[in-house]
Amino acid sequence: MTVLVIGATGELGRATVSALSAHYDVLGVSRSTDPSVNLTEPETLDALFANHDPFEAVVVLSGAVPFAPLAELSREDFQTGFTSKFLGQVEAVQRGVAHVVDGGSFTLVSGILSDHPVPGSAAASSINSAVNGFVVGAAPQLPRGIRLNAVSPTVVTESVRYHEAFRGFEQIPAAQVAQWVLRSVAGEQTGQIFRAGW
Amino acid sequence: MTVLVIGATGELGRATVSALSAHYDVLGVSRSTDPSVNLTEPETLDALFANHDPFEAVVVLSGAVPFAPLAELSREDFQTGFTSKFLGQVEAVQRGVAHVVDGGSFTLVSGILSDHPVPGSAAASSINSAVNGFVVGAAPQLPRGIRLNAVSPTVVTESVRYHEAFRGFEQIPAAQVAQWVLRSVAGEQTGQIFRAGW
Repeated sequence: MTVLVIGATGELGRATVSALSAHYDVLGVSRSTDPSVNLTEPETLDALFANHDPFEAVVVLSGAVPFAPLAELSREDFQTGFTSKFLGQVEAVQRGVAHVVDGGSFTLVSGILSDHPVPGSAAASSINSAVNGFVVGAAPQLPRGIRLNAVSPTVVTESVRYHEAFRGFEQIPAAQVAQWVLRSVAGEQTGQIFRAGW
Repeated sequence: MTVLVIGATGELGRATVSALSAHYDVLGVSRSTDPSVNLTEPETLDALFANHDPFEAVVVLSGAVPFAPLAELSREDFQTGFTSKFLGQVEAVQRGVAHVVDGGSFTLVSGILSDHPVPGSAAASSINSAVNGFVVGAAPQLPRGIRLNAVSPTVVTESVRYHEAFRGFEQIPAAQVAQWVLRSVAGEQTGQIFRAGW
């Protein structure tokens, strides 16, 4: 059986495909793959699920949230983050649940900003927290023993463009975050927020 | 100086107006007062702020999130909760910040479901968490010493309609939640999630 990784071409996605491939067949997709999956157009998921056998696990490592000083964060900025990183991941679960095997799993991504803000992160702190809350609220309601967790990484070594915003934060390699994803896929826990590197 | 309470006619709102009135002048508004304030139409706030001297504090106790089994929660349900309980409260802060005195405060409302779900609470757990994340992310960015906290209550004794959903949860009187709001308004802390009754 296969693990589906959505957002497979980013830093975390590539490291995760690599880590999971040691143990599973992996299908990695993103906006730039064929087939293309874009969680802001969630119907792109339906075609993927319709054309594959049920997956052992679905991993989502996509979604973006605007950064700006609070005084410049508009209603639209909060909405953009909610649509991308929250609703996108929720759609992956809601549309995917019928296409995951009994006892399979979903692993989503949130991030350290839920608890440790940086300047400009008011929207990101909000949306990462919403993802964590979804895991807490939705995990007990999934059918057939399907599990749901989130991996919440600190700033990643390879994501150099974020380093300036995360001054003083310990960085961890994407490969280390990927081990937490593997642990979520391979383990038996559900409703957990796995803090990667903090 | 006056404390503005938005959502003043609900169970928590009435108890909060009562508790704050022992120490402050209080202006309580809601959709059913004159002037009417409805945070899903945030421009109703602007008229209120334009017609009053700056407030010592703004307290928001409004917002609703749909309850339903996960399999029945639609994208629109999550969006409805986000618009009402998250964006509504964010608008109160963003539009209100210029109308609060130096060292004043905002106190928002989230709820225990962020951490302790009940059947049907996947959206509510998400949105309450988003409110907490906003407090964490936005509090450090407010100007002029203005503070921002959330009160996160367990189920309230007077909210009988929720008791069936919260089986096994200790209930606390709305007046006890109101004391946490008073503590947020009167204190010096910021960026805090005050757990009321749990």
